[in-house]
Amino acid sequence: MLANIIGERLIALNFGESHGRCIGVVVDGIPAGLKLDEEYIQQKLDLRKPGQSIITTQRREEDKFEILSGIFNNYTTGAPICMIIWNKDQDSRVYELIKNTPRPGHADYPAYIKYHGYNDYRGGGRFSGRLTATFVMAGALAEILLKNTLGIEVLAYTREIGGIKARESSIEEIKELRYSNEVRCPDLDAAKDMREAILKAKREGDSLGGVIECIALNIPTGLGEPIFGALESDLARVLFGIPSVKGVEFGSGFKGSSLKGSENNDAYEFRDGKVITITNNSGGILGGLSNGMPIRLRVAFKPASSIAKKQKTVDLVKKEESEIIVPGRHDPCVVPRAPPVVEGLVAFILADHAIRANLIPMVLGNEHRRT
Amino acid sequence: MLANIIGERLIALNFGESHGRCIGVVVDGIPAGLKLDEEYIQQKLDLRKPGQSIITTQRREEDKFEILSGIFNNYTTGAPICMIIWNKDQDSRVYELIKNTPRPGHADYPAYIKYHGYNDYRGGGRFSGRLTATFVMAGALAEILLKNTLGIEVLAYTREIGGIKARESSIEEIKELRYSNEVRCPDLDAAKDMREAILKAKREGDSLGGVIECIALNIPTGLGEPIFGALESDLARVLFGIPSVKGVEFGSGFKGSSLKGSENNDAYEFRDGKVITITNNSGGILGGLSNGMPIRLRVAFKPASSIAKKQKTVDLVKKEESEIIVPGRHDPCVVPRAPPVVEGLVAFILADHAIRANLIPMVLGNEHRRT
Amino acid sequence: MLANIIGERLIALNFGESHGRCIGVVVDGIPAGLKLDEEYIQQKLDLRKPGQSIITTQRREEDKFEILSGIFNNYTTGAPICMIIWNKDQDSRVYELIKNTPRPGHADYPAYIKYHGYNDYRGGGRFSGRLTATFVMAGALAEILLKNTLGIEVLAYTREIGGIKARESSIEEIKELRYSNEVRCPDLDAAKDMREAILKAKREGDSLGGVIECIALNIPTGLGEPIFGALESDLARVLFGIPSVKGVEFGSGFKGSSLKGSENNDAYEFRDGKVITITNNSGGILGGLSNGMPIRLRVAFKPASSIAKKQKTVDLVKKEESEIIVPGRHDPCVVPRAPPVVEGLVAFILADHAIRANLIPMVLGNEHRRT
Amino acid sequence: MLANIIGERLIALNFGESHGRCIGVVVDGIPAGLKLDEEYIQQKLDLRKPGQSIITTQRREEDKFEILSGIFNNYTTGAPICMIIWNKDQDSRVYELIKNTPRPGHADYPAYIKYHGYNDYRGGGRFSGRLTATFVMAGALAEILLKNTLGIEVLAYTREIGGIKARESSIEEIKELRYSNEVRCPDLDAAKDMREAILKAKREGDSLGGVIECIALNIPTGLGEPIFGALESDLARVLFGIPSVKGVEFGSGFKGSSLKGSENNDAYEFRDGKVITITNNSGGILGGLSNGMPIRLRVAFKPASSIAKKQKTVDLVKKEESEIIVPGRHDPCVVPRAPPVVEGLVAFILADHAIRANLIPMVLGNEHRRT
Repeated sequence: MLANIIGERLIALNFGESHGRCIGVVVDGIPAGLKLDEEYIQQKLDLRKPGQSIITTQRREEDKFEILSGIFNNYTTGAPICMIIWNKDQDSRVYELIKNTPRPGHADYPAYIKYHGYNDYRGGGRFSGRLTATFVMAGALAEILLKNTLGIEVLAYTREIGGIKARESSIEEIKELRYSNEVRCPDLDAAKDMREAILKAKREGDSLGGVIECIALNIPTGLGEPIFGALESDLARVLFGIPSVKGVEFGSGFKGSSLKGSENNDAYEFRDGKVITITNNSGGILGGLSNGMPIRLRVAFKPASSIAKKQKTVDLVKKEESEIIVPGRHDPCVVPRAPPVVEGLVAFILADHAIRANLIPMVLGNEHRRT
Repeated sequence: MLANIIGERLIALNFGESHGRCIGVVVDGIPAGLKLDEEYIQQKLDLRKPGQSIITTQRREEDKFEILSGIFNNYTTGAPICMIIWNKDQDSRVYELIKNTPRPGHADYPAYIKYHGYNDYRGGGRFSGRLTATFVMAGALAEILLKNTLGIEVLAYTREIGGIKARESSIEEIKELRYSNEVRCPDLDAAKDMREAILKAKREGDSLGGVIECIALNIPTGLGEPIFGALESDLARVLFGIPSVKGVEFGSGFKGSSLKGSENNDAYEFRDGKVITITNNSGGILGGLSNGMPIRLRVAFKPASSIAKKQKTVDLVKKEESEIIVPGRHDPCVVPRAPPVVEGLVAFILADHAIRANLIPMVLGNEHRRT
Repeated sequence: MLANIIGERLIALNFGESHGRCIGVVVDGIPAGLKLDEEYIQQKLDLRKPGQSIITTQRREEDKFEILSGIFNNYTTGAPICMIIWNKDQDSRVYELIKNTPRPGHADYPAYIKYHGYNDYRGGGRFSGRLTATFVMAGALAEILLKNTLGIEVLAYTREIGGIKARESSIEEIKELRYSNEVRCPDLDAAKDMREAILKAKREGDSLGGVIECIALNIPTGLGEPIFGALESDLARVLFGIPSVKGVEFGSGFKGSSLKGSENNDAYEFRDGKVITITNNSGGILGGLSNGMPIRLRVAFKPASSIAKKQKTVDLVKKEESEIIVPGRHDPCVVPRAPPVVEGLVAFILADHAIRANLIPMVLGNEHRRT
Repeated sequence: MLANIIGERLIALNFGESHGRCIGVVVDGIPAGLKLDEEYIQQKLDLRKPGQSIITTQRREEDKFEILSGIFNNYTTGAPICMIIWNKDQDSRVYELIKNTPRPGHADYPAYIKYHGYNDYRGGGRFSGRLTATFVMAGALAEILLKNTLGIEVLAYTREIGGIKARESSIEEIKELRYSNEVRCPDLDAAKDMREAILKAKREGDSLGGVIECIALNIPTGLGEPIFGALESDLARVLFGIPSVKGVEFGSGFKGSSLKGSENNDAYEFRDGKVITITNNSGGILGGLSNGMPIRLRVAFKPASSIAKKQKTVDLVKKEESEIIVPGRHDPCVVPRAPPVVEGLVAFILADHAIRANLIPMVLGNEHRRT
């Protein structure tokens, strides 16, 4: 069903389950003639993979990806590109214990009802955060495409964890520092506090949430389409596809709704012969179209649903109330693993819109490859 | 392009411009055999239409709708339903003055670049809030369908304007009181303050924003699909299609991201033999699927972009800096006109998902109509 | 539902019924900046409209079209273009008599079952050939676009009626003569015989079928996509949407399947520095992609289903066998009205593929319109 | 791009190349709770695989398929099902010799132009008939679904090869005999002649084409949708996606276009209390909807493009005329390998329409699986 597909000209269809044989994605619509940079894709996967530090889940997955199609002599061919990661370290035993007692905060209960029990519930199955590795693969391809054609760059980083807010960082700080620490926050003081907070929550058998901020640079003016083709619409759709995301806002967002028009409007002026806005409360998007300023958005993650504390639940077979201590290996906070996911999805949507606007040719390179 | 289409099994494609001949929408996928309730659709349009009170724009549009197709003997036939509203009171003269000087906060500048000046800029053209009347028509059809089949009801109301927050109201208060006042707020004290704030902003030549909250009741468990077919994804996509919307959150949303898992998780219990959650921080959606609790979401509207104060802008033809006092008739705050729009769009997406889940038959009624 | 939509980047969604208020179509994806040629669209409608001669139905419809949206100052704006034709001369009385006794060859019986009797059965409702006027409107827009950008021209004409085969005509004859006679055949001798055959069938209360051939000229090499994006796939899909069409073939088609590879393969050579094929048995399409030669296809129309002869049928309510003499005004042969329909649909699909291949810019014209 | 996707509710997206690592397909929309029958899928692949007899190509591929996702405890889960076949016996050396001299009848030339030489040309790459194995996998899943829910059965068989026409066979003969011989023809006398003709063509370094006929049984009345959702439209689109197909017709097809309406119309009567048509010239489809009679269609295959005879071609780099003897291992006639491909694609489209019509539930089985 089309529900699993993102994009309109550049599309991605993912497949796989947390404890199945593999996870994968087919990306269709990448123009022919793009030089493949496998290392970049693997780097992005490495930034997301589990087991990197004591603040993430201890599930060990190397997350080495393989390309099954669509590449020839190290260039894209215009054909669908299938990429997969074989699952290695799944431990499904504990899920037998809880298959009829839904974990609070997880999709277990509605999925049980929807699929009459046929869904693969091990490790959350299709609902697992593990699927976000497929977003990273598809997104990294889009990042390479955008960088090589339009120079667009997408940067996501942790802005808030467990109520601890980072200060505003410069673009340079964000570029250099966001991946320098385990929580992926360019404000190093806040990063330290966030790390402590996560460890404390972990010790308490509890979990934390937070906010990822994302900035996209070098955006041409006029990406996006009116009304339901708004950049906000397409970006929000995919960002809400990340497990745990419960809020998305652009520019001044929710805070802007308490301002006056005279405060929130971004006035125009010329700078270096180019039209710019003096402020950027719009987050770089007006009427759904990019206005040439950096796109700026924020994504709210709820605290991770799996906690070690005892919680009330129900037994769906015995039809009686019950209690649960969620078993398995989990992240006390998923936010530190989210920046490469957000970067990938934002890049994917921007690349799709750039192709729709004819800003990227259907074949890259001026020369015929084979002559 | 598919950008203008919403829904997957129940789709809507809108057309028209603010100052063109008409605005309209084609809705395809409404099952055959639904009794048409034209009066209900008109009522919803009346709740949105301009010129209703001193806190809205003085543009006078009756917004009487006509059905052009898809209805036979007062029942739907299964064929596409085209509905239009003829524009009556457009006054396009003032837009000549500003066609090269983009209004801050509006789509004027990126649209000028994107369409090389060919777009209909009068009254904002395709980017005008006037197009939301087409969402109301399509949405009202979906509301009738949902009410007649699954008993689903969708209620939207003003929760905040210009920083003035309404208290939490009961479902009964929301049902009875939300349309009893000009600002569409069930907290009548807050409503009074909001109205004053809007009038003050209007006097000052300024504008306000706010937050619409929406609750959907009697939701079957299991609507929605995993990952990018999440209810949040599909709802956010259409809500960000409303002009001025810059944020969408579900359940505890942004606030929830600073809670702990043990605080934010919704524990299960049985009530009257039915599985419910004790709290509803998820906003009725887990893993993208409805969990049977009320769906609860919030939509942030920026302050209206058109203000009477002088603003800095640029002249795109003369390529010099300039100033603008936005002419035309405008809403000092669009929030009071938004509840029927949000109700319609939310209903539309829920109806689409209900059809996708086979919860609504393709022909309504048990009997053959023609015998 | 997407079933009613054709195209991928250039899309059309039609609505309306034979005896409803109107028929119409929304075309989305026409680039901004195309000069509108209303006269051309009307001419194409006039070539299809009923009541033109004694060999067509006597229903009198002027088929004057109106544009409701998407045009500003006589140019396209990039917004959806809605075009409608008001129905004028419907006579629905006779359909009351036959609403429960399906006409052989028509959709009456399966539609009755599918829609439980709720469908608008008057004049065939959604299944009427009248809807093809919406294909002509959408198609004429595509023809204008193709002519103004790539110089592509699409020519359809009658090749066979009632078993009378026209000889092969030259491109010049086709261009000049196809619309010079009532049956739309460039072979004037055959045209005369075809006309007689139609009149004879009409006198006998019977009907005829035939074959339309279509040639598209000046096709750039490489339109289309592999496998299910083949030009043949997309062209066949829309051509089978024309009522009465039961066969579609490209190049040597069915006849080619009895040839040997050495006979049917088209050898390459250079002509005027350009790669061409010496023969064109492929119909200009190899592997789903255009090869630069003229696209050539044939469409088989069954004899018109409405005949004045008594036929066996059943009464679906009384559940007994019955007889019917189909009432109403009908074409004894629909083929003479089909060329503008085939031309329009073929042009539409070619335009869609040209846009998908980035061969047509999203904004036409080099200059900013508004400066 | 959506060009690679078939279906609307039940979709398939294929990937892979003839000489790449693998070929594969993701099928999305199979309801949860369908018991997997891997053996059936493998049997269908075996009926298509190369190297089975002296009348097919000598490329040796076992075509053993693997399921990567979407199955749990041997039942479908409602999640996307990815199936792949690893390529084993590709021999790409010969393709180096011809990479700049397009083979007549193949996609080489337009693909070279379209992709600027970046496409994987080895063995035809994406344009290879090898991709039809992915249609068989997706189609076999649909066949299992249709058989287990609605009892629909799809039978394809060779009707004509190299001008040798088989006589009409009974349904029983078709069921029993079509796969009893190498050419897949239920008329055993014709089968013998066809086999001889293929061997003769092979000896001569030439190739043959032919016609596949397909019948679908136990079709519920009312499948399909009006106009562009016609069963003919959706079936033709996918059938033209098979390499070498140049014609598709339904019921009396091209031959019917020379009949009179009184001859071609199918009169109704009751048989065993059920409405049937006495003849079936419509091929079971009226107005795009199934009428409950068997669906009957014919598919024309051109003679295989790869022949051992010397042919004229051009050198695209040297820009001069040239000659070619196509190297590699090829089928002298692809028709005998096509029946499982046609069966699969026809079943896939019928299953999609059955799901769209709510005739197949989204979860199969009445009982909760996990209790």
